[in-house]
Parts: sequence; structure tokens; C-alpha cells
Amino acid sequence: MADRVLIFDTTLRDGEQSPGASLNVPEKLEIARQLERLGVDVIEAGFPISSPGDFAAVQAVCKVVRNAVVCGLTRARSNDIDVAAEALKEAVRPRIHTGLGVSDNHLAHKLNTTREGAKEQGVAAVKHARRYVEDVEYFLEDAGRAAPDYLCEVIEAVVAAGATVINIPDTTGYATPAEFGALIASVMNRVPNIGKAVVSVHCHDDLGLAAANALAGVKAGARQVECTVNGIGGGAGNTSLEEVVMAMRVRSDVYGADTGIVTQEIYKTSRLVSNLTGILVQPNKAIVGANAFAHSSGIHQDGVLKERSTYEIIDPRDVGIPESRILLTARSGRHALLHRLQHLGYDLDDPQLDRVYERFLQVADRKKMIHDEDLEVIVADETTLVRVSYELLHVQVSCGDHSIPTATVELRGPGGQTMTDSDHGTGPVDAIYRAINRVTRVDNELIEFGIQAVTEGIDALAEVTIRIRSEDDILTGRGSHSDICVASGRAYVNALNRLIEKRETAGAATVARHSHSVREERA
Amino acid sequence: MADRVLIFDTTLRDGEQSPGASLNVPEKLEIARQLERLGVDVIEAGFPISSPGDFAAVQAVCKVVRNAVVCGLTRARSNDIDVAAEALKEAVRPRIHTGLGVSDNHLAHKLNTTREGAKEQGVAAVKHARRYVEDVEYFLEDAGRAAPDYLCEVIEAVVAAGATVINIPDTTGYATPAEFGALIASVMNRVPNIGKAVVSVHCHDDLGLAAANALAGVKAGARQVECTVNGIGGGAGNTSLEEVVMAMRVRSDVYGADTGIVTQEIYKTSRLVSNLTGILVQPNKAIVGANAFAHSSGIHQDGVLKERSTYEIIDPRDVGIPESRILLTARSGRHALLHRLQHLGYDLDDPQLDRVYERFLQVADRKKMIHDEDLEVIVADETTLVRVSYELLHVQVSCGDHSIPTATVELRGPGGQTMTDSDHGTGPVDAIYRAINRVTRVDNELIEFGIQAVTEGIDALAEVTIRIRSEDDILTGRGSHSDICVASGRAYVNALNRLIEKRETAGAATVARHSHSVREERA
Repeated sequence: MADRVLIFDTTLRDGEQSPGASLNVPEKLEIARQLERLGVDVIEAGFPISSPGDFAAVQAVCKVVRNAVVCGLTRARSNDIDVAAEALKEAVRPRIHTGLGVSDNHLAHKLNTTREGAKEQGVAAVKHARRYVEDVEYFLEDAGRAAPDYLCEVIEAVVAAGATVINIPDTTGYATPAEFGALIASVMNRVPNIGKAVVSVHCHDDLGLAAANALAGVKAGARQVECTVNGIGGGAGNTSLEEVVMAMRVRSDVYGADTGIVTQEIYKTSRLVSNLTGILVQPNKAIVGANAFAHSSGIHQDGVLKERSTYEIIDPRDVGIPESRILLTARSGRHALLHRLQHLGYDLDDPQLDRVYERFLQVADRKKMIHDEDLEVIVADETTLVRVSYELLHVQVSCGDHSIPTATVELRGPGGQTMTDSDHGTGPVDAIYRAINRVTRVDNELIEFGIQAVTEGIDALAEVTIRIRSEDDILTGRGSHSDICVASGRAYVNALNRLIEKRETAGAATVARHSHSVREERA
Repeated sequence: MADRVLIFDTTLRDGEQSPGASLNVPEKLEIARQLERLGVDVIEAGFPISSPGDFAAVQAVCKVVRNAVVCGLTRARSNDIDVAAEALKEAVRPRIHTGLGVSDNHLAHKLNTTREGAKEQGVAAVKHARRYVEDVEYFLEDAGRAAPDYLCEVIEAVVAAGATVINIPDTTGYATPAEFGALIASVMNRVPNIGKAVVSVHCHDDLGLAAANALAGVKAGARQVECTVNGIGGGAGNTSLEEVVMAMRVRSDVYGADTGIVTQEIYKTSRLVSNLTGILVQPNKAIVGANAFAHSSGIHQDGVLKERSTYEIIDPRDVGIPESRILLTARSGRHALLHRLQHLGYDLDDPQLDRVYERFLQVADRKKMIHDEDLEVIVADETTLVRVSYELLHVQVSCGDHSIPTATVELRGPGGQTMTDSDHGTGPVDAIYRAINRVTRVDNELIEFGIQAVTEGIDALAEVTIRIRSEDDILTGRGSHSDICVASGRAYVNALNRLIEKRETAGAATVARHSHSVREERA
């Protein structure tokens, strides 16, 4: 019987630290719901004290998650913990995740404290957190470079103080699998009361070794893995959920461990996170890349046909990759659409379904066959629930290589008034953006523009994702249409609406506010 | 003193098996030249018998590569080896890479032979190859699932027959680091004559463990690593060159090994391969992803500022990530452009430089600042050296959400005649493609469309990459322009020209031809 390893998903916290990946509350809820379907054990929903948005997101996630533990990150400070406890109040199974650096490097350069002082601060934080919740996780930042005796001493002290989970991160992504496995084994062997806590591993992918390091930790006795969907996160990102889960599943003979993950939900979850964060998955990404199961030709395919076991170690159906993608046509009714959307993991309310159905009919009118990817794009477009300050009513553009690209746009503004303006630019998108700027007058800079998900065929539905920067904020905007110029205009207006929403939320914040610098704690 | 580990780059062979990544000969040469600058020890240039294109590519690579070994793949058949030897004739340092399956599964289901028969076939192949070249590498496909005694027996026999390198692949990406390290250690310990050959590791990334497996092999004594730039390749891809190289560099204390790679060329090589294959690198990819070194904010950045060693294990300059990207303006002369292009690793001849300079001036006219990324796009666009059957002279389009997208195009055809036509479509790109189809009448289907590399700023230069399918061929097309509609039209014409070139090359082929199925041998 394989041991159970808990999956701690931090897509909404550490994953969201990817530049420009910021998600609003409704998007975080959509991901949280899908993470529940995926069967993760713990959802780290945010870092409540870092911003009003994070606070609100943790609160909202607590209300919709029924089975998974919902976790909030804090520094080892009582005020952080108080705010996290408040955000977690309605969780069925709340967890506070606190902790502190433990290497001399961190103590000296980052924390300005002594070994003894840091240990006391950690113990006090755990005790304080236990006043609010029974489940307290403690992270030991930069554990890999800590003095081994001191590391064990701190772990023993915080477990004695009531920590239920001990998180050993490879903070810099510097460890090799043998080394990281040895670190975990030494903690398991040397800390006398370690049996009272679950040991957790949290690895970063700076050298491409995150999955291997996490698995080495499991082999050495860790029983929780912290990871993100598609491996997203700051820098080179975190351990990929899909890689560690499938490695444990496929190689249970080696690891003697398994998870509660419903693997058939993996592909769907990967697509959802990629769609909502705007962070691409490269085609050669393990498990979830577009080519991961594309055994396209030649001897290789011949091998697969002759005997699946010759090459293929994972059946694509086991991770939920759909076998056929051509599904609906203009004649498909509302019920067929609802059914397919449910199969794809979307749980829409009636007004959302109405909007999606209306768009579906428009698209089906232009395209013969509606693929699952088209539906994903439509749903992403119609359900993001960004508050609409500006609505793009009309776009018209004329361009070419010997002409001056010129656009006219009509928008409905916050007060309901309709405004029309025109401008020219270096290309049609530039012309549209300039025309929109003449109407909206929101200062910003376009820093990224991409067309990312387009279904097969020349009548494709284009999905445009952009990022804009305004002061310190980076906002993502998405828009889709069979016309890439219209899709670009929609993406831009979507980003502007997010920017306006963010400014207003920030202005109306009532929870304790800290400097922006708190936000990026790296556990 | 660290042991030297050889880097065997198979971007041009195994990497090119990524669906749609097919490169023409000039593109392969451009990559081969950059691989020499990068300092790889071996360039696997192709599988000569698989197609006339591969044969020609191997031949051409031999002529430009001065320092690296150039290697051609074969099956363990004399005809394959004869053709490879012919293709490698002009190499300064030629290597033939041959081999055979070694697991009972492969012997039974794929090769229909016995253990004894396979061993004899392998020995005969090595002897045959040694008649042509002194450097013969032997791959043992599916070594991980082979009976250990038989594996050692085959290795001993082929080394005795003259194999200089023994390639132990993890063919299915099924191995774990501990297991794969143990496999290599067992070969090192049990094969009596193993000291006469270099042991090489060739891993696949199906479970996200390729880098860790390759490094475990090095730790166990392997002294060659087979890898691809950005980890591209069929399925989930190969070991990433940049990951294993930087892991050995950063953790030489653990691996006691180093390579001859000029790490400052890594980023440039990554960009070049991504540009030419059209295969994206995800932002959270280790070492070469856009965010890999983006320590964007907060405590984390604070940590970096206070003390670099707190978080950062690799200095971005060590992998050649440029510090500043704003470089040239419309006033920069031809010499400044040439200088910058050389710095970026491009080695253009005079006619190419003329074309690039002309485009540079056009772009600089529209944009204030020309970034390195703009230059990469312009160079990619102007130097691909696809033979031009059709040239897109003029594109004009009108579109919008309440109008019928309509395009007019003018092309110059193979006979020099100018043709103009118009059509409408679901969007501007569709309209342009339909109008082009009316002129060119080349049957094909658009299967992928993406805008992938766009420099910062609203006046961005858009690079469009598309893939089309016609019968069994998948062709990539690229085009750039500040107008995404024009860029899309150029990309389509570029793909059509590749398709026509491919058909004509195939028709004119003189070398021995085998069925398409040979192409995808997975070593």
C-alpha cells in the first residue's frame, strides 16, 4: 500500500508571483474551484497582509472551498498572523503558514537577528497562530544553507510549540536531488519530535531540478509537496504539480507513495491556469505541453501502434487530454453547450451561461465546428468578471503595407455615455490603441502583446493577451474574436478595466495595509 | 580540477523532431555556426538516410563546422552507414552514431530479433562504420528496461568492435535519477573494457526529470551529455543543454565536472533556436525563460540588493542575458548595425546585410528605438534564405466587428508575373489568406497561428509564426512587420515558399530514399 503524499498547491500565492500573472478575485475563485476538483489537499490562497486584494482573495476562497485545507501565508509576526486568521475565519479547514529564514546568510543580511532570536521569534509565531487555528505550517527559509544543528533545533522547537507541518524549502533552487534528499533524511532522523508533524518540500526550478528535488524529498520521507500548476512562479518557477504527481503515479514502485489527485483533471487545470494568468506552456513541457503526447510520425508512432509500452509511459487519457476536440456546431443547443462546458470543468451561473451562449452562437455562425479550445476562449472572455468601466462597442480599421493604419472606435464609458474617436498608428493594433487612448485617457504603457491560443483552421478564433504597465502595476488583458484586430481592442479595454478596478479597490481598502515590499515573500 | 564532460548537441536531429520544427539547410547552418560559438563538443546534424533534406543538411554542416565533431545518425544497417559516411565526407572530425534496441520489449515488438541476433547486428554495424571513420558512437535503445547482463554483454562487444562512445538513453523518460545513476554506475563497474569508450547519457523529459537523470549519469561517471537547446524534441523533449551545463557549472562541488561551453552564448543560442524553429520558451523556463532572472519586486528584490548571494545563484551576465536592450535608432549607420549584429552572434554576408539594413531603416522610421529583439526579428525575416517562389508585394485590408473583413493582395509569381486578387473572410488574416490562395492555388491547411516575439512598446514589431499542413508535410512560416496583418500575410507566403521548395527538393533528390517512417528514430 502506497503512502499518501499531500499536494499543497500554491498557484494562487507563489505562482501568482510570476511577473504580470496577477489574478483578480473571481479568477482566483475559478482556479480554487478547479483545484478542488483536481483533488489537491491544501490550497495556499494568498498572503493576506500583503495587500487588500490578497486579503479579499483568501476570504473569498475560504467561502467556496469545502474539502481542501485553505492556507494563508504570513511572516513570523503577530500582526501578520492576526490578519491571516481574520481572512481565514470562514474556512472549513484553515491553516496558517508562517516562518522565518534559518541560514546564517538570511539571519545576517535579511533579518538582522541572531540564531537564538530567530528561534524565539518562530516559536512565538507558532504559538500565536495556534490560538486561532489547529493547523500551523512553519517554513524554514533557505534551509539548505542553514547549519544542520541549528536547523534541527529550530524544527524541534516549533513542533513542540504546535507546528503541524514543517516546510523545508530549497529557496534558491540550488540543491541537487541527492543533497536535498539527504537534507530531508537528516531532518527525519535527527529531530526527535518530527513524528508529530508532516514534513513538506518546497522547491524552485532555477537549475531545472525542482521536480527531481521534490521527489528526492518524498523518497526520504516528506509527505507533503508544495507545487504550482504548470510550474509557474517567480523566476524560474516552482515544482510543477503535474510532474511530481505523475512521477509518483507512474513510478510508485520507486517512491512507494501516491497522491489524492484526480489525474484526469490535470490537463483541464493546466489550460485554465494558462488562460487566466496569460502564462504560456511551452509545447515540449512535460505532461501538459501541446506536444507531450504528440507521437507524430515514423518509427516512433509505429512503435506505439505495435505495442503501447514500447514508448508511452502515460496514457494521455489519464491526464485528461481530450481525444476528440470537434464537438459543437451552430445547431447545438444551450443544453449541449452547458453539458460540454461542465465536462470541461466550467461551473457557470445562469447569467454567465447566457453570455457564453450568445457568443457561442456568434462564433458558430462564422466557424463550422466549435472546438473545446474555442469554448475555453469564449468562457475566459465572458466570465472574467472584471468590472466593466469601459465597453468597446465598435472597432473599425483599415491597414496594409502601403497605407497608414487608421482605426475608429466607439466605447461606452463609466457614466453610460457613448464616445467615438479615431487615430492612426504604426499598425492596426497601434491605431486602435491610440484611438482608445483618446477616449479613455488612462496613462499606461503596453509591455507585452501576444496571440496565444488559436484553434486549428484558417477561420480560427484568436485570443489576444496583453500586459500593460501603469506606475508599479502590471495588468493583463484578454480578448477574443475571429478578427485579431477586434480581439486586440477587446484585450486592451479589458486591461484598462482591470487597471481602473485595481485602483478603486486599493482606494477603498479597509484592512491593514503594508508596503508593497511585503508581497513577494518567498517561502 | 574538474573532469571535462562533453556536450553532444542534438538540436538539429532529435530537437528537430518537435512537430513543425523542421528547419531548412540555411537555418541549420545558422544554428550549427552558433553551436560552435557556444563551444559544444559534438553537433549531431541529422539522420542522413532519412531524407534528402537531412542528407544535404549533414553535408552542409560538415563544410562550416571547424572545431566540433559532426555526427550523423544511422540504424545498425550497412546501407544507412554508407549513406551517413558519404554525408560526413567533408567533416574535419566526423562521427557515425549507430545502434539498436536492447530491451526484450524492443527486440520482440520492434525489431523481431533475438538477443544474440541483435548483438551480432550491432557489432557488424560498428565494424562497418569504423571502415569509414575512427569515431563511432553506439546507442542502446531502451537500455533502462534491458536485462542488465545482456546490456553489459552488448556494450563489451561493441567496444571491442571499435565503438568509441557508448550512448545509454532513457528512451521513454521513465527513469528516476537514482535509478538512472545506478544504471550508469553498473555499466562503469561491470563492463571490463568500458575504459576504452566514453559513456554518454541521452535522457527524455516525459516526467520532468531529464536534467536530473543526465546529471545523475555524470555523477556516476558518464562523460558526455546529449541534449538540445531549450530542451526541444519530440514529445516532452530532451535534456535542456542550458540546465545541465549551468548545473554542472554552479554545482561543480557536487558533480566535480565541467564543460567547454561558453556560457555567455547560452541566451543568444536559445533565442536563435526559438526564432528559427518557432518553438516558444515558456517564461518560467529555467535559465533561459523571460522571467528566469526577473526578480521583480518586494522583499525578494530587497534581498538581492542587500546581498546577491541571498537568492541569486546565477549571474544573468554569465548566460549572456543582455543588460540593456535599447540600442539603435534611425541615425545609426550600417557599421553600427553590423557591429551590433555581430555582438548578437549573427554572421551575415554582404547581400544579407544589405537586406537587413534596408529593413532596419524602414522599421527605424516607424519606431524610435530599435531593440535587440527587433534586430533578431528582422534578421530572421531577411536571412532565412527560403527560395522565393511567390513574393508578397502589397497587402491592404479593412476589418472590424461590424464589417466584413476584406483584403486585397498583390504577389509576384514564379514566372515574374504580378497578380492581384481580393477576398473576404472571418477576420483580416483569414481574408488575406483567402486572397493569397486565389493567386497561388497551393492546397494546404493552417494548423497553427501565433504572434510570438514582439518587442516592448505600443509601436511593436510583430513577428507572426504559422504552421501549415499539406499532405504529410508540416511547414513553418514567419513574417514580421509593425502591422500584424501584413506580418501574417508575409508569414503565410513564407510558408508557401517553403512548401514549394520542399516539394521541388524532394522531386530532385538523388540520394537513396527511404520511407518517411525512418525519420523519427528515437535514440
